[in-house]
Amino acid sequence: MASLRGTQQPELSKKLFKIIKSENHAIGAYEAAARERVGIAQQLSEWGEATEDETISEISDKLGVLLAEIAEQEDIYAQALEEYRGVLKQIRNTESSVQPSRDHKTKVSDEIAKLKYKEPQSTKIVQLEQELVRAEAQSLVAEAQLSNITRQKFKEAYDHHFAATIERAEKQIILAKHARRLLNLVDDTPIVPGDVHPPFAEVEAARQVLTDAEDDLRHYQLDVEPIHSNAGNLGVGAMPGAPVPGVGAGETSGAPVPESTTYESTVRNESPVGVQYDKAGSAPYPLEEADRVERQQQEVPRQEVSNVA
Amino acid sequence: MASLRGTQQPELSKKLFKIIKSENHAIGAYEAAARERVGIAQQLSEWGEATEDETISEISDKLGVLLAEIAEQEDIYAQALEEYRGVLKQIRNTESSVQPSRDHKTKVSDEIAKLKYKEPQSTKIVQLEQELVRAEAQSLVAEAQLSNITRQKFKEAYDHHFAATIERAEKQIILAKHARRLLNLVDDTPIVPGDVHPPFAEVEAARQVLTDAEDDLRHYQLDVEPIHSNAGNLGVGAMPGAPVPGVGAGETSGAPVPESTTYESTVRNESPVGVQYDKAGSAPYPLEEADRVERQQQEVPRQEVSNVA
Repeated sequence: MASLRGTQQPELSKKLFKIIKSENHAIGAYEAAARERVGIAQQLSEWGEATEDETISEISDKLGVLLAEIAEQEDIYAQALEEYRGVLKQIRNTESSVQPSRDHKTKVSDEIAKLKYKEPQSTKIVQLEQELVRAEAQSLVAEAQLSNITRQKFKEAYDHHFAATIERAEKQIILAKHARRLLNLVDDTPIVPGDVHPPFAEVEAARQVLTDAEDDLRHYQLDVEPIHSNAGNLGVGAMPGAPVPGVGAGETSGAPVPESTTYESTVRNESPVGVQYDKAGSAPYPLEEADRVERQQQEVPRQEVSNVA
Repeated sequence: MASLRGTQQPELSKKLFKIIKSENHAIGAYEAAARERVGIAQQLSEWGEATEDETISEISDKLGVLLAEIAEQEDIYAQALEEYRGVLKQIRNTESSVQPSRDHKTKVSDEIAKLKYKEPQSTKIVQLEQELVRAEAQSLVAEAQLSNITRQKFKEAYDHHFAATIERAEKQIILAKHARRLLNLVDDTPIVPGDVHPPFAEVEAARQVLTDAEDDLRHYQLDVEPIHSNAGNLGVGAMPGAPVPGVGAGETSGAPVPESTTYESTVRNESPVGVQYDKAGSAPYPLEEADRVERQQQEVPRQEVSNVA
């Protein structure tokens, strides 16, 4: 690492920052595995051809097709994890944006305490106490926003994550089971020297296995217990919004949910207690900087994995 | 790479050598993914605790347990692939050991042709023609051994491979489905500033999810269509052996099968046509050298992956 600058995350978002970084490595590993596997599928087909054994040649070629599809599912899984990672980032961004309002409240409190000790008669104390009331109101909003966003996006993120796990698994089971059918078309009855194996009689059966696998994949549908959300009427500003007409609790997951990262620009008008963010709290720059630095750092290990491959 | 010495594989085993090498990279990638995931599970639990949101803290901790178990399955999968890779090596070793007998036959043929052109009256021709007959007999044995071993071990290798794919998938589905139950215990109804979420009332339900997941994993059994083998009576020397009494074709997969790598030391007595391997054909050194070089080369990228992690 050439520089530590920009790597300091607000205390509040440090832990999630680390998780998001680790997930980037995990995703890179799955992408590397998928790439290797696509290559191996091709190599297996070529090896089979080179054996000059008709049975091995036919079956290894068809196995290669299924292995390549299993590898493709590994890659699709990696892309789905990238989406889940994006949702985690929405929580992290909210955490980062809440830090300044916590800091501001603490700072004003400290100033008042200091002033009361040093210049107990200062008229500035009254002014600061008014500011503290505003800071506390702002902080209450920020903490409620953080709590609302965290719960909603936490469910959304791991909904993605586990749905992707199940989809990869179910599709790979389909493919692996058909692949096992192919193996049973290989007659491994041993021969004596000078003898040859009978000609491969299962060309049609082998082709049918691939057709069946394609059909099964085409008709595949992910069927999991849905994750229920009551956050569907989460309004702008990440606060409870107006109830959506005709939509009850637990049934709102289809309702449009505003992106958590957009609330910062609208909170000024919508915040129920009417406070305004100070500039440090609403400025988007610290978040973008964190994202940029993270991308720079993480592209390096991702490439290293691909060099190894 | 510091040296090219020792990397030359016999032509016959080059393709499989490459597959075995690629699988080593793929296995390394899965191991890296598993390591990352174990770390993420721990980090998620710590993040949840730091949110000071009782619900998120409880659920993220339990999710961490399931995520760590999913990671563990990824690692078990990598170990199973290592076994499959070991079976591929048995084919590759046989390929390597057959190469010298092919080469020897070609060499004797070439010498005869050269001698017939240069010194057609040479008495050495008769001697060489006798040697060619022996070389051809030896080659017939070697090719039959190669064919027998290839078919048997090909089925065995991919039986392992796809069984491992299915087992990882089925266990991860169990874990991911229980994980989704945990998510539904998080109430994401938004709160207004100053309000707090009600206390987490689902501690017992969350604990039950983990218990159920453990039970399901403990009772899990892999249930796949078996791969049938007729190679069960493959005798020493990788030739058809004596039929096992009372065991019919297709039912012999339970019979003891000699390791293909052991046949070289016993072929002298058992080979049905009574030929003997020449030293180049039966010497174990070229194989061991290839294995050693491969290990050296492959440990490097495996470590690089772990550095990235």
